[in-house]
Amino acid sequence: MRTLHHRDGHLGWDRDLPPDAEIGPGDEVELVLHDAFAGQLGPEATAADVARMDLDRANPLTGPIRVADTAPGDVLEITLQEVVPGPVGWTTLIPGFGLLADEFPDPHVVVSRIEASHIEVGGFARIPLAPFLGTVGVAPGEPGPHSVIPPGRVGGNLDCRDVRAGATLLLPIEVDGALLSAGDPHGAQGDGEVCGTAIETTATARLRVDVRRDLEIDAPQLVLPTTSDDRPGVATGPPVGPRHVTTGVGPDLYTGARDATRAMIDHLADRFGLDPADAYALTSVAGHLRIVEVVDAPNWVVGMDLDLSVLQA
Amino acid sequence: MRTLHHRDGHLGWDRDLPPDAEIGPGDEVELVLHDAFAGQLGPEATAADVARMDLDRANPLTGPIRVADTAPGDVLEITLQEVVPGPVGWTTLIPGFGLLADEFPDPHVVVSRIEASHIEVGGFARIPLAPFLGTVGVAPGEPGPHSVIPPGRVGGNLDCRDVRAGATLLLPIEVDGALLSAGDPHGAQGDGEVCGTAIETTATARLRVDVRRDLEIDAPQLVLPTTSDDRPGVATGPPVGPRHVTTGVGPDLYTGARDATRAMIDHLADRFGLDPADAYALTSVAGHLRIVEVVDAPNWVVGMDLDLSVLQA
Repeated sequence: MRTLHHRDGHLGWDRDLPPDAEIGPGDEVELVLHDAFAGQLGPEATAADVARMDLDRANPLTGPIRVADTAPGDVLEITLQEVVPGPVGWTTLIPGFGLLADEFPDPHVVVSRIEASHIEVGGFARIPLAPFLGTVGVAPGEPGPHSVIPPGRVGGNLDCRDVRAGATLLLPIEVDGALLSAGDPHGAQGDGEVCGTAIETTATARLRVDVRRDLEIDAPQLVLPTTSDDRPGVATGPPVGPRHVTTGVGPDLYTGARDATRAMIDHLADRFGLDPADAYALTSVAGHLRIVEVVDAPNWVVGMDLDLSVLQA
Repeated sequence: MRTLHHRDGHLGWDRDLPPDAEIGPGDEVELVLHDAFAGQLGPEATAADVARMDLDRANPLTGPIRVADTAPGDVLEITLQEVVPGPVGWTTLIPGFGLLADEFPDPHVVVSRIEASHIEVGGFARIPLAPFLGTVGVAPGEPGPHSVIPPGRVGGNLDCRDVRAGATLLLPIEVDGALLSAGDPHGAQGDGEVCGTAIETTATARLRVDVRRDLEIDAPQLVLPTTSDDRPGVATGPPVGPRHVTTGVGPDLYTGARDATRAMIDHLADRFGLDPADAYALTSVAGHLRIVEVVDAPNWVVGMDLDLSVLQA
């Protein structure tokens, strides 16, 4: 298995970047990922350190990886096999960034300790460990460079906590060879990532990459395995899943909700033969609209999340 | 315990409606609730029946209930003790109503059978039974009448699936005696209620009503008990909760997300003594923004959902 290192990676998206490696569909790859601050914060970080950071270095990516035999119109299927986060996490308030940026103008940092099954957040909270990759994407078709901050229809900085071990991410390919990159590991995050950052950390991740030619998608979609959900749940309930999550990516949450819902209806009609009106009714009674991220300006991500086991009646 | 019947209830919100009953803080009441279509659909309902419905009769409420010793500025605490839904459910597409109203112009209905622990949705899906009240609210301070369709800061048609047995709903009181009403029972619903309706059904509900003078809230909030969550969850995970859900209610989802997040930060600062910047960081790493409903025009509801057990470190 190939290992790629972030020091050979890149900043931003650009279809003309030379690939760091080429793999074939079905291959696995190991990625050594920098944290989103590119190592600028240490375990004793202070608000002054946050204020001093060079944000032009933010969100460095590992890649790009050329995937042989892929072309625009294909769908890249990325199965996350393992995400092993670093021991230290940082959650920052960065002036001008975040859902309440106008109300929190000062830099701030909470340093967390990442343990085997949980995270000690500052000195005041303990949350479940739920590591995932904040950024996984392929090169946009439009010539770059493009900022790494906003996600797009080809993925990127989705900051979607479902992009974790066991999940499969589906991305529409826009350039020959796909040009896959990843970064921005998180130890845990809520839907929304409201202050602009998660438990930011380093990680090593293993992925398997495949190509799908039986799908047509306009935005990222996810397949989540049975009982792999990390949301607050009924401890005594039956297993759930597999779940399917469609997304809407763009500057308006209402449009994102519409796009994600329409994509779910199309999925239910195409894959399960449901009448579209019945599929729309089913998303209403059993599908959940989540604000996946609302901070990576100018594009927010809305997810429509459905437990497909409801169809196994 | 008092029982109130929907046939003595009302349509719409109005501070000048005569109360149907008066109770004191600490009292329980049983409510017999009509379905949101006021009985206009039967177990063999068709799209033609949907087209023929008189929507001026929609969403009839049981109440209003005057709560003694309550005044503007107090908070009404409504604890849902039991919600027993009817045997038949209807999910309709109503022309002009719903998140994708422009793409689904035709009337449609899916009739469901509500069983002891699940719901048979049409002939094509089986979902968990998760009954709740779509509409619970107090009279707005502004003289009426007001439509029952949009929710507001005093609650109403929140269509929030958390308003179920075991949950406590907190509502800001705007008129003397609060004037509580409820209706719109649902057998189950996803976050968003995207097609405009849930599993619409009848129900009998038991509530206990109290007054809180130690809280200041600008919009509905919910307290959810440990392990009462009906979202897809890890069957083998530890119990979670209690959870606290703040809401933002209004015509813009982004503003709603901001309002819900700010309310959660205030809650964490006021009740747990957290520094507001730390509270903001905690909502980012552990709180989940949910689109509770996005169809009751012109007001949508966004929830910020946090498992408070993360603070018991």
